[in-house]
Amino acid sequence: MKIAHVSPLFESVPPKLYGGTERVVSYLVEELVRQGHEVTLFASGDSLTSARLVPMCRKSLRLSDCVDDMPHHVYMIEKVAQLAAGFDVVHFHTGILHFPLARRLSAPHVTTMHGRLDLANLKSLATEFSDLPLASISDSQRLPWLFMNWAGTVYHGLPLDLLPFSERHQGYLAFLGRISPEKRVDRAIAMAVAAGVPLKIAAKIDKKDAEYFETHIKHLFDHPLVEYVGEIGESEKGAFLGGAMALLFPIDWPEPFGLTMIESLACGTPVIAYDHGSVPEVLRQGHTAFIVDSVEAGAKAIGQVESLPRRQCRQEFERRFSVRTMAKRYVKIYETLISDWEPRSRQLPNGSRSTWQKSSRLANSTMS
Amino acid sequence: MKIAHVSPLFESVPPKLYGGTERVVSYLVEELVRQGHEVTLFASGDSLTSARLVPMCRKSLRLSDCVDDMPHHVYMIEKVAQLAAGFDVVHFHTGILHFPLARRLSAPHVTTMHGRLDLANLKSLATEFSDLPLASISDSQRLPWLFMNWAGTVYHGLPLDLLPFSERHQGYLAFLGRISPEKRVDRAIAMAVAAGVPLKIAAKIDKKDAEYFETHIKHLFDHPLVEYVGEIGESEKGAFLGGAMALLFPIDWPEPFGLTMIESLACGTPVIAYDHGSVPEVLRQGHTAFIVDSVEAGAKAIGQVESLPRRQCRQEFERRFSVRTMAKRYVKIYETLISDWEPRSRQLPNGSRSTWQKSSRLANSTMS
Repeated sequence: MKIAHVSPLFESVPPKLYGGTERVVSYLVEELVRQGHEVTLFASGDSLTSARLVPMCRKSLRLSDCVDDMPHHVYMIEKVAQLAAGFDVVHFHTGILHFPLARRLSAPHVTTMHGRLDLANLKSLATEFSDLPLASISDSQRLPWLFMNWAGTVYHGLPLDLLPFSERHQGYLAFLGRISPEKRVDRAIAMAVAAGVPLKIAAKIDKKDAEYFETHIKHLFDHPLVEYVGEIGESEKGAFLGGAMALLFPIDWPEPFGLTMIESLACGTPVIAYDHGSVPEVLRQGHTAFIVDSVEAGAKAIGQVESLPRRQCRQEFERRFSVRTMAKRYVKIYETLISDWEPRSRQLPNGSRSTWQKSSRLANSTMS
Repeated sequence: MKIAHVSPLFESVPPKLYGGTERVVSYLVEELVRQGHEVTLFASGDSLTSARLVPMCRKSLRLSDCVDDMPHHVYMIEKVAQLAAGFDVVHFHTGILHFPLARRLSAPHVTTMHGRLDLANLKSLATEFSDLPLASISDSQRLPWLFMNWAGTVYHGLPLDLLPFSERHQGYLAFLGRISPEKRVDRAIAMAVAAGVPLKIAAKIDKKDAEYFETHIKHLFDHPLVEYVGEIGESEKGAFLGGAMALLFPIDWPEPFGLTMIESLACGTPVIAYDHGSVPEVLRQGHTAFIVDSVEAGAKAIGQVESLPRRQCRQEFERRFSVRTMAKRYVKIYETLISDWEPRSRQLPNGSRSTWQKSSRLANSTMS
């Protein structure tokens, strides 16, 4: 199959700094290439990929002197539109910017929504584009946009060899992520302290969260059971998560997916989480996780977490959250989109017919 | 003529707060209606207009709880594309966001570039869209984008009765605008002090310029010749500018137009300006202004500025910078665009033909 992936340009693919979307795009693209698909990647010029790279700017925008990302993203959408007829399917990861052009694209297409959809002011946009094929990264992510044309939910996946399985833990709890109000590191600390188990915190503090950290969190780090290890890189995650008896994930927001949860499962480490967003979809109560609703319940769960076999967590990861599973589900979606695809004129609100024409899909498109 | 205007949604049309673009759009739209054209305005729902308003959001984004303007602007571009075939011409004021859709629009169109074009990272976008009809607000604005498809330069214009002509000044100099590094209020102060003439400063201090103000400007306001009158509203401009013997405009950046200069001329007040951006186009040396290159020359100009007849400044304003002149020039551009318009397929970079179709313009379009 000839597949185009359209990545945000903030980070390279894969990202050199933090960039959840670009990281998932990289895993997916590499796996699709491995499966024999002909993949084209629209991304920043410093991306590293086995796909054919169409560089849309020299360097990722976060590493360049870019003051406004928009011109680069508008330019990319234009290039994709021009080249679309050469692909069997175009897969967007660029939020909503491309919606008007996607609707008029000369190829089947799908957009994975990588962010939360519950923020204000998206309603009229969503209603207008309720015909556009979208993919969600969890079912719960869809809730504010239930009326959209959902092609499917595809959970993020990781390469099997990305994080090593760790048979035995080293007696500490782990918190991994950002120090921000919605991540609730304060809850993680309270749970660990109540259970009397050491907690290691690997987290970055964004500039925008500096005041929150100073006011609400910093003093909590003084507790003798708490160790702040700073921000850690991708290469350190395996040891950090693998050594933990459990990951604490006491979030307070509708997280659309939460890569950290499956990174933890990949290491064999069960998760103790609050019931928000994708948590009850990604984790299985009493199998890979304890899903709790209070610090007391969390502390109690810590006492029981060794009853969840680490091997079982790893197996769940391999079955549901491998990059192969993710790619397979997306290919299924591509196949449906391609077979449903037909040239059509769009009915316009004023009753007249659009002059936009969509081409039929390539006669020579081949399913790999 | 059936004309659509597409305004940014940050402010209402006209703006309740500061919003140069929305203000000019309002003047232009009202004048086109007055001239008998059938005008449709895509703008925020709290806009006040004699045109047919197509509200794109309930309230202007700056007055609402909007965290991201993009969904609203993307939604608007989509609506414009759907309705485009009903207009003889579509006039965009929305920067670059609509470029891909404008290229594929079912109607002649033009985009007025309201901002500076010399910022980094716009080059590949501009090269890609060098066929798109654009209007500049000064010739100098074009310099970084000379290779674009310029339909014309149209200077901003104001209603003749907006600001009253003031026969006599009251012996002070005026500075009007923002306190920011590129506006160089420090130069204005130095010029006034060197000439020994009082200077009144009416300016707002944006949050982002607060540190600059504290560090570089605040202490200069202590001089007995300097009076800071704070930020003034539209209704106070006439008295403030009309009472001045000259407006000081010692800018240090390529200002694409500079509404303040023509507001000053409308009041009969000559301008002493530095030679940047549109200054030598808007002002005439020794006629409505002295264009200088140093504080010394500026101070000397202050001593001579009464040799520039105030009536002459007003006449220049009425001749070149009235809203009628502006509207006339735009209508000329519309006429050319409409007569040049024909359905065509776009030649794509890869040699294949685009599947986009443009409709011919409406058979029943009538020139007013």
